[in-house]
This record gives sequence, structure tokens and C-alpha cells, in this order.
Amino acid sequence: MTEPSNRIVVIGGGFGGLETAMRLGGSTARVTVVDQRNHHLFQPLLYQVATALLSTSEIAWPIRHLLRRYKNIEVVLGKVVGVDRQARNVELEDGAILPFDQLVVATGARHAYFGHDEWEPLAPGLKTLEDATTLRRRILTAFERAEREPDPARRAAWLTFVIVGGGPTGVELAGTIAELAHRTLPGDFRNFDPASARVLLIEGGPRVLAAFRPELSDYAARALAKLGVEVRTGHPVSGMAAGEVSIGDTVLAAETVIWAAGVQASPAATWLGVSPADRAGRVKVEPDLSLPGDPDVFVIGDTAMVMSEGKPVPGVAPAAKQQGRHVGATLLARLAGDRTPRPFRYRDQGNLATIGRKAAVVDFGWIRFKGGFAWWMWGLAHIFFLIGVRNRLAVALSWLWIHTTGSRSARLITQRDPLVGDD
Amino acid sequence: MTEPSNRIVVIGGGFGGLETAMRLGGSTARVTVVDQRNHHLFQPLLYQVATALLSTSEIAWPIRHLLRRYKNIEVVLGKVVGVDRQARNVELEDGAILPFDQLVVATGARHAYFGHDEWEPLAPGLKTLEDATTLRRRILTAFERAEREPDPARRAAWLTFVIVGGGPTGVELAGTIAELAHRTLPGDFRNFDPASARVLLIEGGPRVLAAFRPELSDYAARALAKLGVEVRTGHPVSGMAAGEVSIGDTVLAAETVIWAAGVQASPAATWLGVSPADRAGRVKVEPDLSLPGDPDVFVIGDTAMVMSEGKPVPGVAPAAKQQGRHVGATLLARLAGDRTPRPFRYRDQGNLATIGRKAAVVDFGWIRFKGGFAWWMWGLAHIFFLIGVRNRLAVALSWLWIHTTGSRSARLITQRDPLVGDD
Repeated sequence: MTEPSNRIVVIGGGFGGLETAMRLGGSTARVTVVDQRNHHLFQPLLYQVATALLSTSEIAWPIRHLLRRYKNIEVVLGKVVGVDRQARNVELEDGAILPFDQLVVATGARHAYFGHDEWEPLAPGLKTLEDATTLRRRILTAFERAEREPDPARRAAWLTFVIVGGGPTGVELAGTIAELAHRTLPGDFRNFDPASARVLLIEGGPRVLAAFRPELSDYAARALAKLGVEVRTGHPVSGMAAGEVSIGDTVLAAETVIWAAGVQASPAATWLGVSPADRAGRVKVEPDLSLPGDPDVFVIGDTAMVMSEGKPVPGVAPAAKQQGRHVGATLLARLAGDRTPRPFRYRDQGNLATIGRKAAVVDFGWIRFKGGFAWWMWGLAHIFFLIGVRNRLAVALSWLWIHTTGSRSARLITQRDPLVGDD
Repeated sequence: MTEPSNRIVVIGGGFGGLETAMRLGGSTARVTVVDQRNHHLFQPLLYQVATALLSTSEIAWPIRHLLRRYKNIEVVLGKVVGVDRQARNVELEDGAILPFDQLVVATGARHAYFGHDEWEPLAPGLKTLEDATTLRRRILTAFERAEREPDPARRAAWLTFVIVGGGPTGVELAGTIAELAHRTLPGDFRNFDPASARVLLIEGGPRVLAAFRPELSDYAARALAKLGVEVRTGHPVSGMAAGEVSIGDTVLAAETVIWAAGVQASPAATWLGVSPADRAGRVKVEPDLSLPGDPDVFVIGDTAMVMSEGKPVPGVAPAAKQQGRHVGATLLARLAGDRTPRPFRYRDQGNLATIGRKAAVVDFGWIRFKGGFAWWMWGLAHIFFLIGVRNRLAVALSWLWIHTTGSRSARLITQRDPLVGDD
């Protein structure tokens, strides 16, 4: 009984795409959600997988399971390689074609190296579950190497962790790595003291957490210093080679370098045949989040450059969710025959960032918190926003355990599988 | 103050090696535990990771963390490539040398293909965490492929799961895959019914669970049939190719084939320069578990061929643990000057195997159980034997959740990491 004009394709099962799909669940539209991975990922907690605090399955869920109750929604595991706007088709890598009447592009962003793609293998970033387990393997292996390394200089290089980028992800990574070294691991090794590990946070701009008020940045820098993190602001990374990183004129021997410095939108602009709006490759959209000149194509989340009340909307999870809900509502209205454009308005729900196990900063605009109370607010907010009931419970228990004992449960070095391909 | 004759090297951090080391914790011996992985693995539950019931970190813990409180024990992450019994050295892949006065070899077993090594990529086995996540990816991906496959015959091949080997691992895998298909997944897909998936358990011998009494084998076969597993006994697998498997004269189109048919000891016999005692490559030992002619070298667990009261000791976790404890006690006695050989006696604590979510068989020799009550016994026994307190709680909660809701939390298809090597 589906009208042929009701075929809606949503590319991406992240925060934005999932919200759009959920809005359309149970409607008369025939919805297809396509993603190259089978799971929705709670990205804000990805750094906790990378630092062995949480396990992979605590922050990711199969997309088709999240949408299973909506019989009008089909989930397709596949990699999009192009969009034919003339023919109204989405093209998948395996040659399959998904015809659409209306399209929602919500493909997110990857980390970007701003003209230094050769740095990627040297300084991996953190966007996917595999990124997180790779980082976890690298961080834990560095301590194992240090244990076996007789040369003090080489050992020091294994025990030097450099995080590039002082945004929330960089601050959170630096704080938890410092806690891992200074709190969790001492006692586990015999040939060195893990507390001697150096953790450096490198920010090219004048302060960490630039999206927050200066006083919260100052607090974060002090809290990081208290955890033993060396915060270096004002000098960007100028060079990288295997086992070393250059900051300004200083060359540092460091075997573990992590990239948290910038993101680049997915290749959606190329697919759609439009010029990217900025260096990050995002797509400029109309106030209703549709593509200029093509009102049946929407771009949301980190892929879109969205203005709200004269200001650019930040690339954060709540913004993507709000945009997903907005487009979902727009599409529902159209199903009912109402095609009035509905401008999107971003509701800033505040900024949160955590610094290790007992400190955080929270900025709601009208009120600000820092310290232990902010940390509990951060924790409750994240548990609340985790999608599955059971995962909320599991994460809460994990944190409570870690908080009480200082132990980390997910300290597994897993290796690549040499035999079986990616099938 | 350590006597130079007190250097003890334990190769392997599995059930046997860990027990030996724990016995020696706090003694005057200088103990080194070397393993190629950083984690101790609770192998009896590995099939639950492969079938998305449990998460990797619920059944594995860093070896050095388990042994952290014993200051006389050092843990080395490294791959053993040889043992020089003349020079009393263990040789690692990276060129390092671990000198020993007494050596314990507890390196376990890998799956074996009995002259058909070319089957390994076609039918992966289940011994490591990576094996388990690889199987999980293969099983979950098969359903995703089925969803996208228009050709009914090809779709049927994606929905056919063949488990080779009717021992406890094969039975447990077949039961949980059948439950995944028939209970967890229905509702998640739009283009086929997951309940139409076929799960075949192939056993070359006359019955499944051959180590149990015939009436328990019969019960297990009936319980499997009730879950929708097709049990085929009496015909071994005769051939394998990509996408198909031959059983006797029958050729079956199946994209997922899992090997649970046999194990082969680690190359310990080669390292030690002795002839393997059997086709599985195990090392024959004296009644006190030492190598014939070399009373300071012990071989335990799946690597050893041990006789107890005229019968071979089975390759199960409790046997490895008992042997580890026995050798630990022997070494402690020697530290006290007592070198009397102490013969090992195996205490058979019974056989357990589970068939899906509500049935199990338990054989204590003097009494036998089957059905729901046996399942609860099996669950309690496993929770009890899990090493960490928190993991016991986490696994108990996971199971309770799955038992109540039928949902599985760890249904993640994670992929190989294309950028970063094994470092």
C-alpha cells in the first residue's frame, strides 16, 4: 500500500540518521537505512574503550536491532559509493541500487590530518570501534614494550604518550591515559614504574577546550596537570616520524601518538555533486536542512554546515540528534501533504567534558560547573543518553566498579586475525 | 637474596600455568610467566563470545594483573620459539633469552585439521579471543548477506551453518547459533525469516558428547533437535571448498563452517627435543608430570599426555588446573629441600556441557543430571570458576538479561584494521 513517492533512504546509522529513522517508524513511508557498519556507536564514550574502561559492546548496538519494531524500516549493511541525483538512486559498492524519493545524508565525519595524510598511520584517530581497539592495543602494548626494554631512552619513548588536539576528545584521552598509568597500572610491572609515564596534550591554539569559557579551560588545564598531564598550548605539531613527533622546534621521542585534532566530513559533497562549503568538506544546507535547489535531499549532522540564529551549529551528538528529529518531522509532515519548509533551530543544551575520574566541566551557558559535582553530572547525562536500558546499567556498574577499585576490566590486547579476511 | 637455582620459568598463562604461578607466589623462587598474549582466557565460555552472548572482556583478564600481588613473579609478553635444555634457556621470537633452573611448559593446544590444513581458512576453529570475534563477524555477516541476497539458493547457503565436531564445543556452538537464528534474530530482518536458517552438527563418530554416558548423548541429541539443530552422526566431513562442505557423499552449500573437531598440542615436543607421544603432538610425562630424564622440566595441561590410575587424563580446564597446582606444590617442596617425586592423581570432577539456553548435561560419574536443572548447575559452576569477582557479577547479569529478554548485547561486526599492524 506504499505510495511510490514515499521511498525514503537514510544514509548513516549514527545519531542523526537513527533519529530520522525512528521518527519515521510506523509511518506510511518505506524507509531504508544504509550503513557500512552493522552497529550504531555511542561515540562520546569511544575514548573509554580506547583506554580500557569500557568494553566495545557497552557502547554499540546493532542498528537493525534498534529499529526492529518498525516494520516499515529496512536496514541495509552496505558501503555507499555514490548518489545519482538525476536517477534518484543511491549506489552501493557491491553494485546494488537503492532508489529514493527523498534522501537523508547523515554520514558523519572522519578525523582529518589537514594536508598531512602521511601522519595517519603514525597518529591514529578515534572515530570507530576498530579505532578504539587499535588504540587500546597500542597503549597497552607500549607498557608491555617498556617492561621488556633495557635501554632507558627507548623505554622512555615507549612511556611517552602524545595526544594531539585539546578539544574534549583530546582532554578526555589525556586524562584517562594519565590515570591508567598513574593509578591503574602501578604494581603490575617489575622493571619500571608506570607512574613515570609522560602524557602530553598538544594544542595549537592558546587554550584547551576552546569551545568552553576561558575559566573552564583554565580549570581543565589545572585538573589535567594534577593528573600528571603536561599541557602544551600555542604550538601545533609540526612534524611526525616513526617514534617521534615535533612540536614547534622541539623533537620528542614518543612511540604512541594519538590524533584528536580535527575532523573531515564524509565524501557526501562529492556524492551529491556540490562544492564543499568549508575546509572540512561539509555541505551547505538551507535553513530546513535541505540541499539548495533539491528540497527532497537533506544533509544533517557532522556532514552538514548548518547555521542557526546566525551561528554555525557545532558538530556534536545533540546537534545531530536534533537535526535528525527535525528532518524526521519534516518528512512526516510531507507524508500528510504539508510541504511548508520548516527552518531548523539549534537548542544548545550545554557543553560537557570530563577530565579523568573525578573532574569535569559543564557549561550550560547560563550556569557553569566544574570539579567532582560536574563529573557526576557528566556521568548521569551519559548514562541517561545511552540508548539501551541494559547498557545504561552495564556502563553504570562498570564505572562504579572502576571508581571504587581503580581497576579496569577491558585491558585486552587483541590482535589482527591473520587468516580470515574482511568478508 | 634469591638463590640462583630458584629461577622458574612458566610458559603459558592458561589454566595450568596460572595455577602453577599462583602456587609459587610469595615464595623465594624467582618466577617468570611468559605468554604470547597479555590475557588469561576463560576458554570454556569462548563459544559465547563467538555467538554474541558475552563480550570479550567478560571472559579475559590481563595475566599481569591477575599476578600483580606476587612481587616474585614477573610477567613477560612474548612468543616462545624454542627451549635450549642444554643451556637451560627459553628463547623468545625477539631474540630475548629467559634462563631457567626449572621449567613448566603449559602452552595448551590449537585446533587441528588432521592432515587437512587447507581447511583452516574455510572452517575456522575456536581457541583464542580473535578466533571468537572472527567467528562472531562471520556468523552475523552471514545473516546480513542473506538479507541482501535475491537468489534463493545463494541465500540458503548464507543461512546454512555447519559445525564440525560433536564434542562439548560443537554442541554448545550449534545450540547457541540455533537460538540466535530462531530466537534472537527474528524481527530484525525484512527479506527473509532468520528462523529458516539451518544449523547442522556433524560428528564422525556414532554419537555426540562421546565423553558422556550414552543416555546423556541421546538427551543432548534430542535437545539439539528441539532447538532446530540437524544432528548428523556416523559420517565425517570428507571435503571442503569455498561455500560448500562434503559429508560422506553429500555436498552441502554452506557459507559458514566452524571447526570443533580436534586439537593439536602446541609445538612443545619440538622445543623440548622429544618425540611426540601421539597424533595430537602431546608430550609423554612421568607420573610427577616431569619430562622423562629431565626432572626439572614439567609439561602440563593440553600439551602433556598424562596417565592417572591407568587412564589418560582428559584435555579439560579442571585437569590443567589440578596439574598446575600439583607442579606448583612440587616446586614449593623442592624450595624447602624435598625432592621426593610426587605422582599426580587426577580427580574427575565431572563433565558438563550445555545445549542452548535451558538444557545441559552434567555427569559426575556417580550421579547424572540433564535438562533445566543441569543448565542452572552448569551456569553456577561457570560463574563460580570465573576468576574475577566483578566478571562473575557481569557474566551473571549478562546471562540473566539474555535469559529474560532473549536479546544479545554483543552483536558487533568489527572489522580488521587496515592501517595499523600487529605491533
